[in-house]
Parts: sequence; structure tokens; C-alpha cells
Amino acid sequence: MGKVGKSVSRLPVALTMGDPAGVGVEIGIKAWIRREAHHLPPFYLIADPIHVQTTARRLIEVDTRLRDVPPIAEIKHPREVESYFDRALPVYPLPLVRKVHPGHLDKANAPSVVKSIEQAIAHVFDGIASSMVTNPIQKSVLYESGFAYPGHTEFLAEICGGNHLPVMMLSCPGLKAVPVTIHMPLRDAVSSLTTEMIVKQASIAASAMSRDLGYKAPRLAVASLNPHAGEGGEMGTAEKEIIQPAIGQLRDQGITVIGPLPADSMFHEGARRNYDVAICMYHDQALIPVKILGFEYGVNITLGLPIVRTSPDHGTALDIAGQYQANPQSLMSALGFAGLMASRRKKITEFEVQKFE
Amino acid sequence: MGKVGKSVSRLPVALTMGDPAGVGVEIGIKAWIRREAHHLPPFYLIADPIHVQTTARRLIEVDTRLRDVPPIAEIKHPREVESYFDRALPVYPLPLVRKVHPGHLDKANAPSVVKSIEQAIAHVFDGIASSMVTNPIQKSVLYESGFAYPGHTEFLAEICGGNHLPVMMLSCPGLKAVPVTIHMPLRDAVSSLTTEMIVKQASIAASAMSRDLGYKAPRLAVASLNPHAGEGGEMGTAEKEIIQPAIGQLRDQGITVIGPLPADSMFHEGARRNYDVAICMYHDQALIPVKILGFEYGVNITLGLPIVRTSPDHGTALDIAGQYQANPQSLMSALGFAGLMASRRKKITEFEVQKFE
Repeated sequence: MGKVGKSVSRLPVALTMGDPAGVGVEIGIKAWIRREAHHLPPFYLIADPIHVQTTARRLIEVDTRLRDVPPIAEIKHPREVESYFDRALPVYPLPLVRKVHPGHLDKANAPSVVKSIEQAIAHVFDGIASSMVTNPIQKSVLYESGFAYPGHTEFLAEICGGNHLPVMMLSCPGLKAVPVTIHMPLRDAVSSLTTEMIVKQASIAASAMSRDLGYKAPRLAVASLNPHAGEGGEMGTAEKEIIQPAIGQLRDQGITVIGPLPADSMFHEGARRNYDVAICMYHDQALIPVKILGFEYGVNITLGLPIVRTSPDHGTALDIAGQYQANPQSLMSALGFAGLMASRRKKITEFEVQKFE
Repeated sequence: MGKVGKSVSRLPVALTMGDPAGVGVEIGIKAWIRREAHHLPPFYLIADPIHVQTTARRLIEVDTRLRDVPPIAEIKHPREVESYFDRALPVYPLPLVRKVHPGHLDKANAPSVVKSIEQAIAHVFDGIASSMVTNPIQKSVLYESGFAYPGHTEFLAEICGGNHLPVMMLSCPGLKAVPVTIHMPLRDAVSSLTTEMIVKQASIAASAMSRDLGYKAPRLAVASLNPHAGEGGEMGTAEKEIIQPAIGQLRDQGITVIGPLPADSMFHEGARRNYDVAICMYHDQALIPVKILGFEYGVNITLGLPIVRTSPDHGTALDIAGQYQANPQSLMSALGFAGLMASRRKKITEFEVQKFE
């Protein structure tokens, strides 16, 4: 599993199928259609070619701007993407067990959903894909098939080896935000918050902002947990006891940090000019501003892993699957970020190789 | 104290001084200057005329669009506002003990700050002001002078009598939000949340939306406490055990309610079209979206009291006091809302009198 970062330039991005009952394949096709206008990097879909073909056919019935069925090219190796991408959506075949009924989950197809993710990881590790983008999955169906992870991120971290701390960053135009606690009840988020957790994740975010996203000296802003930043202790002590010490340790590492800021006044336009990434204390503190500012453009980026992985910031959208009205914008942003981050990481790696040889 | 609601049409809005070290008087003068362009209702400032005069003189040194010092008219009774408002800012005199140094708090002036609020309440209760707008205060200085309330709202509730539950509503263009828990540590907000609390405040919000703000059948949206609305119990049980029962009780009262909604996806433009007011579980859940969507236009409206009271949604701004760069937009919105709500409440009162006589 060792060729990561060796030759990512010109390599395609691997896109997983996501749950076939959802909109993943549909938005994958739509993204390919808009590849030129949106300057998307070459990518391929790891999916069932029959499902992709059926979806492509249905799409032209709904989208009157499409005159022909979008062409599909079955590939045997990601190296073929380059020659097909201009004229067809490359599909690396991964058959489904059952016919897809959009909007209706089917446990029988769950193993293929998981395999699509594993295949993408393998391609990136084998140095034949630059990075991976994951389409939305329906965790409940996968749990029942023995997928025992809270989500993609934890699954990827496990496969990448135990010594990596994956960090979730949400990005939309005008805001990047890292929730330090994520998928847990708010009560647990409040009680589990530690200085160490903030320092670790903020450090990883700072490194990634610099290595993968081109910020020379990224400026971090750390949010408070309590209203009015605790108002000097009258509305909570987490700011003094947990967050302020974390900011001190980050500064000792040479990282530019402001905070703890009152969370309500740090996300308006003027305030966002003062930092590059917001370090947030809980899920909704990060997600509320990201979804207000860029509902259709939000991207979920996993930092801290040896591979580049992004995903659209929405779910399977089962309620609109089969209507072919899903918006591919978030997926397109995710593909763009994956390509950009992989190429930057490649440059840095070259630089580091020059430096240390 | 009984004439509330009897003759509010044409009555002026009472505006308190706020902490004189802050920007209250400055933005009051600026609002008066823009009274016509912004269709502001007639209002008067309850403040020290010398402080107002000094502030007005300094203002023209900074604001090059102003050719003359804005004129001030000292009044003895709010009834005089009508005749002066076109040509001068009416000031109901309330002397300060010490000269004001902008940006520097002075405990000696705290009693006047409190008296300015009491005077405004008295004018509204006496039926000689339609409503009141409070400029920002610095609670820490007032605490030391024996003002033992967390803020304006609780002070007003106390004066209005014990049987009123004041409800805070934040309003900005495109969003109205009520935080059910407010000024407490997030940990306490989580642990103190009850079904009863949500039902009471949401009912008051629904009545006020209809009586004071002209929504015939206001649509409420209740936010979840936990990420992903608790994801069926996997990320918390407050949704099932506390919030869902509250929604049931509100529907039994005939109120239109949706929820519990995932908080992160309920504040983008498309989602906000589905409701008129968001009922939020904690301070920042309401304040983050309000301050993103309308940082300069946010208004704090107190519902559930016999008097109409609004305030700008910002603090004393001590850091910029004396620079005369403060933005009066939020105060102007507060004045506009106070006038509108008072005149609507008057109409309803007339209607109810006709109906029941």
C-alpha cells in the first residue's frame, strides 16, 4: 500500500457509487456533462455500468437540454480515463446484485457500496488514482451488512492505519470550518471537549491548509463553546479552562490563531476576513454557517490521512432520487477540491524529495 | 400603570440612552438624521442633553456629509415630539453625574442609565409613548450599582409584573428566531430544556407574530438540539423525548408547526421559505444564522410583555465609541419595528374593543 503521492499529476479522481438508491450516480453523470465549464479534473465512477447506463437514459427524458444519452465508457484500469474522459464518462465496473429502484434502499446491494469505497482507496494507494471522492451512503443499510463505522471518514482512517487522526473540514465559498466534535449528542460534545482534542485537530487543519490548499501561513479562528464566549466566566468556563489553553499551545507551535471568539458574531462577512479556517466546538456550530453560506457548494474534506478524500456535503437524497432533479454542484466542488489538493500535495512531495535527497 | 394600548397612534417611540460610554447616543443622532429616508416613526431620546449636544458636535467633525451640527430640542413631555421631530432630535432630559469619556465605563453614571430605562417604561405605561427601544447597556457596570438582572428583558418583565414570560425574538431580513434558552452555559441549556418551556415560548411567539407583526397564521419551525435531529435516537434523545411532544402540544393549540428539523439545514434560503419563525434550542443556534444573514440589520424584540420593546442586536461597542463610525442600521430597524408593532397592536386593541363591547 505504499505508492501514495508518487505520480499524482494527470491521474484521475476515483468517484464511488454511493448508495445506488440515492442520487450519487445521477450527479456523477451530471458533473461529467458539465466537466468543461467547471474545469473538473478527469474522474471515473466506480459503479455498475448497467445502473449508470439506465440512469443516463432516464436523465435525457427529464433534462430537455440533453439531446443524446450521455455516453459511458467501461474501463479496465484508471489509466484509460485520460483517453476517454473528453467524450465519455469512464466507469470502472462494480456490479450490483439487485436492480436499482431509486429511493428504495436494498440491503442486497450494500456489499457493492462498501466495495466501491474499498476499490477507490486501493486505486489511490496503488498510485493509479490521484484522490477519491465519495458519493453519499445510507449508513443504516451498511450497518446491517457489517459496516461498523459512523461514516466514510472512520472507515478510511481504519484502512489507512491506526496512527492517523482524520479531521473533517467543511468548505464553502467564503468559509472553511472544522468541527472538533462531530457525530454525537450535543450533551456529549459539551462534556467530551478537551484541550488536547482542539490542539490536535487544529494543528492538522493548519498543516493541511498549508500543504494541500496553498495557504502559506493559515490563520485559525477558534470558536467559543458558550454564548458570548462565556462572558468572563458568567456563562461557562470552557473558554478559560479548555479553549484558551489550546490556543496557547497552538501559538507555541507557531500557528496564527485568534479566539476564543463568540460564535454568533464570527461568521458574518466582515468577521470572516480575519481568518482562513474556523475551529468549531460542535457539529451544528460549523454546519449552520457552512450550509447558510454555501448550501449548494459545500464540500466535506477529510484531512489528516495519507490520501486525499472529499465528498459532497449532502446525503443520499432518497426523497428526490428517480426525479433526476438533483443538483450536482456540491459534487462538482468536491471533485474540484480533490483534484486541486492532490496536485498540490504532489508538488509539495516533489519539493520535499528534492530537499531531503 | 394602566393606559397601555389606549392611544398609541401618532405617539412617539421612547429611546433610552444606553451606556453613555458606548455608541447609543451617537447612533440615536444618526438615526434621526436618516429619519426620512428610512421612514422612521417619531422618537425621542431619554438622555443628558449636554452629552447629546457634545456627541452631535463631534459627529460633524467626522462625517463630512454633515454641514451643520444636528439640532437638538429639549422636551418636557413626549407630546412635544410631534412638533419638533421634523427639524430637531427631541431629547427628554436625564442628566448624567459625570462627564462622558467615550469607551470608558463610569459607575457614577450607572444610576442614570437605569433611570433612562425606567423613564421609558413609565412613558409607555402612561400612554404617552407608543413603545420603547433600548440602547445597549454594559451589564457589568450596572450589576455593581445594584441592577440585579441578566439584562433589559428580565428588568422589564419584573416591572411589568410577575405573570409575564418575556420571550426574546431576533429578527433580520429573511429570518425571525426565538432562542428558548438564552444566557447560560451551553451545558445548562442542554440540561434545562423542557417540553413546557418550548411550548410556552413558541405559543407566545405565535400570538405575537399574529397580533403585533401581521402574520395571520404564522408557521413555526422547531429546531433540533442534536446533530442530524438526533438521527433517530443515535445522536441524542431530546428530539423524541422533549421536542416532539412540544410540537404535538403546539399543534393541539392549532398552531402550524414543523420539526424537529436538523438545525444545520433549516437556515438556508430555500428552507426558510417554509416557515415564518424558527424556535431554537439555545443562544448560538438562533444567533449564528441571524448574525450571518443580517449582521447590520438584526433587531431584538421582546415578546410576551404588555409593552412593545425592541433593541438593536449589538452591544455598547466601547472599542469604537468616540470614533463616530458606528453603524445606526440595527437601531433604525429597532425603531421601525417598535413603531410598526405598536401601531398594529393599537389596531388589534380597537378591533377587540369593538368585538367585545
